[in-house]
Amino acid sequence: MRATDIIMKKRDGGELSREEIAFLIDGYVKGSIPEYQVSSWLMAVFFRGMNFRETADLTELMLRSGKTMNLSGLAGPFVDKHSTGGVGDKVSLVLAPVAAACGIRVPMMSGRALGHTGGTLDKLESIPGYKTGLSEAQFRDFISKDGFAMTGQTSEIVPADKKLYALRDVTATVESVPLITASILSKKVAEGAEALVFDVKSGPGAFMKTVEDAERLANSLVKTGEALGKRIVGVITDMSEPLGFKVGNFLEVEESIDCLRGSGPADLMEVTYRLTAWMLVAGGKAKTVEEGIDACRKAIASGRALQLFEANVARQGGDVKAMYGLYGKHRSAHVLEVRVPRPGFIGAVDAYKIGCAGVYLGVGRNRTEDPVWPDVGFVFERKAGDRVEKGDLACTVYGKDDASVEAARPLIEAAFAWSDAPSAKSPIVIKEITAL
Amino acid sequence: MRATDIIMKKRDGGELSREEIAFLIDGYVKGSIPEYQVSSWLMAVFFRGMNFRETADLTELMLRSGKTMNLSGLAGPFVDKHSTGGVGDKVSLVLAPVAAACGIRVPMMSGRALGHTGGTLDKLESIPGYKTGLSEAQFRDFISKDGFAMTGQTSEIVPADKKLYALRDVTATVESVPLITASILSKKVAEGAEALVFDVKSGPGAFMKTVEDAERLANSLVKTGEALGKRIVGVITDMSEPLGFKVGNFLEVEESIDCLRGSGPADLMEVTYRLTAWMLVAGGKAKTVEEGIDACRKAIASGRALQLFEANVARQGGDVKAMYGLYGKHRSAHVLEVRVPRPGFIGAVDAYKIGCAGVYLGVGRNRTEDPVWPDVGFVFERKAGDRVEKGDLACTVYGKDDASVEAARPLIEAAFAWSDAPSAKSPIVIKEITAL
Repeated sequence: MRATDIIMKKRDGGELSREEIAFLIDGYVKGSIPEYQVSSWLMAVFFRGMNFRETADLTELMLRSGKTMNLSGLAGPFVDKHSTGGVGDKVSLVLAPVAAACGIRVPMMSGRALGHTGGTLDKLESIPGYKTGLSEAQFRDFISKDGFAMTGQTSEIVPADKKLYALRDVTATVESVPLITASILSKKVAEGAEALVFDVKSGPGAFMKTVEDAERLANSLVKTGEALGKRIVGVITDMSEPLGFKVGNFLEVEESIDCLRGSGPADLMEVTYRLTAWMLVAGGKAKTVEEGIDACRKAIASGRALQLFEANVARQGGDVKAMYGLYGKHRSAHVLEVRVPRPGFIGAVDAYKIGCAGVYLGVGRNRTEDPVWPDVGFVFERKAGDRVEKGDLACTVYGKDDASVEAARPLIEAAFAWSDAPSAKSPIVIKEITAL
Repeated sequence: MRATDIIMKKRDGGELSREEIAFLIDGYVKGSIPEYQVSSWLMAVFFRGMNFRETADLTELMLRSGKTMNLSGLAGPFVDKHSTGGVGDKVSLVLAPVAAACGIRVPMMSGRALGHTGGTLDKLESIPGYKTGLSEAQFRDFISKDGFAMTGQTSEIVPADKKLYALRDVTATVESVPLITASILSKKVAEGAEALVFDVKSGPGAFMKTVEDAERLANSLVKTGEALGKRIVGVITDMSEPLGFKVGNFLEVEESIDCLRGSGPADLMEVTYRLTAWMLVAGGKAKTVEEGIDACRKAIASGRALQLFEANVARQGGDVKAMYGLYGKHRSAHVLEVRVPRPGFIGAVDAYKIGCAGVYLGVGRNRTEDPVWPDVGFVFERKAGDRVEKGDLACTVYGKDDASVEAARPLIEAAFAWSDAPSAKSPIVIKEITAL
């Protein structure tokens, strides 16, 4: 077998066998296939695509390049959720304890903020003392005790994805549905989940800018997951505007607490209920999404979900009392107030621009090694569709220093669109694709 | 400027600026752009193509990566011919002295046999003593004395092409018209020719298998050359069957002498006359192709072309007497006679299969470092369209040893197609594209 022939076969629109994909991936991980062959193959895949069988084989071969979490011996059902990334997306912090309260075991491995999108691990670590780097033994132990645990990916999980993703990033081959599918699925399957709910974001603040692209990815995740024997749901949600009213690290912990206390913002709760309810359906704890939503509401109303959240914070080293002490107060002194320039309505709040501004403020980062700050971000007073008067406070911005606030200001001002008439609200849950 | 952005721009169908192409090519040659970025860009070019402006810029930037032959001070016009490679294609050996006899200066840089195609340098070196590695001073001197000189490319000529070609070869990005165009043109322009005639072969024995593909390449060569300020002619010729009756190294020298003596095979002479006549037109030594052909016939009839051929052989260290002494006798003792199996007609002689069989025999090579043999190859008695009787000698095959003849036998037998009726002869000169 020769790498060149495999590249040529894909280039000319052929379907690669499992052996051919294994030859490339195993060889790349071992170092016998050079990067320049892998990158030309990646570009050929960009243009020619891969069918679900090829994508499933690629996923499984990537998965096998590393270690997988061993959850055997624990009682399931194990179901996780993964979001393709957004702005103000603190769903995981609410969803995990709610699902756990409803009898689902959530082995959650999350990522960090990168570019304009936020990261669950950075948000959790803004809680004093909270640690996200769990050992496998801790992960198993915490799941069995609280129903969920929150950790990051170790370097032993899917090393092939780390190598491939770094190469895709510098060879303009990131935006390929089968490659994105294999990257996401290999990591989620490595966690040990039997069923998965994907929140595929769509819109300016998402990786997939259009509903069509989001649908293509959701469909690929569902079909490829099915080929791997997993139960998968793909939920396409809108990411035009940030989710909820708070964007930041500790600011999003605060808003998650609001949600668990039953006072979460409508858009955020709608997405959270929908995704959690699908986890219940996928895990056999609800027959329908409606029944699932009902169970989620009860888990919040009873206080059980908040209780599990607090238990997890304490379990992972966090100081629950200090967390509540900081609630409403953990704000940087470098502040900008955005005021409404004219009476009328807020036409839009551009999630992408807010996310990019957040990188300046210290919410997110451009490079994985950059630090983030806990006490920075945005508190919105109004969102798209709301009536406003001239001079009203639209948003309070907190930055790591004055320079960061000034650097972010033009982006933040450009993020708001003002209009004379209220715009029609677009639905937040756009489409659902399942293979249950 | 970032390489990733340039790759992405081409991937998404954009037109690259000269600066962007320069950033990639100069960076690649200097080592600041890694191979994995160049190879993904090459694959993007494979899918998206390049327009003539981009291709001309690429050609010129590749050209500038190295040295060019300095012919200044010599009297022109300097015109060369380049063939995309075929089987039995000894046109260069005849065309150069004929064109020189008609007042054209031919600065010819040729290649070696590779894969199923033959190489002019290997053929010339089968003449005892003949040397092809000329210094620039020798090249200039010989051209000024005999009107032409025959040399190979030094490593100083277009090093960017050497690096790029090696990378294309292992990343399945060879078959791209703009990349082939830039590779061919950069090397030919580096020779110092003002005008160029391209013999773009088409058919099973050619790199371009269909007339459409050959036309695409010919058109690209003409238009890109025009953008570079060169006068270019593209002649598409048929390479279904080997050219002439002899295929080998010294065997092709013999047939070239036949041509220069006025007794060359019809197909070979037709291609040679046509290509040489276009050189005369491009160099201003003839007004029309017909006038050019007439001049070529006279150069052969007068003996002037043969005289210049002999002068060149002696000039480049060859032994003219020894060459004539070997004529008709320089044959390996490892022989196979191919006999006609049934009465009727020869339907076809497949040039590709003959070329591949030639690699076994020692005519050509699979790897550039393999040796070739002077006294091996094929002498055809009959070609496609000829009436034959059972038992007639169709072809005599000479190999470097008995094993090579046995290895080549199945390919050679498969190369002949037999039929009951004479097939219609397809034209040998298929189409001509000029920008004169």
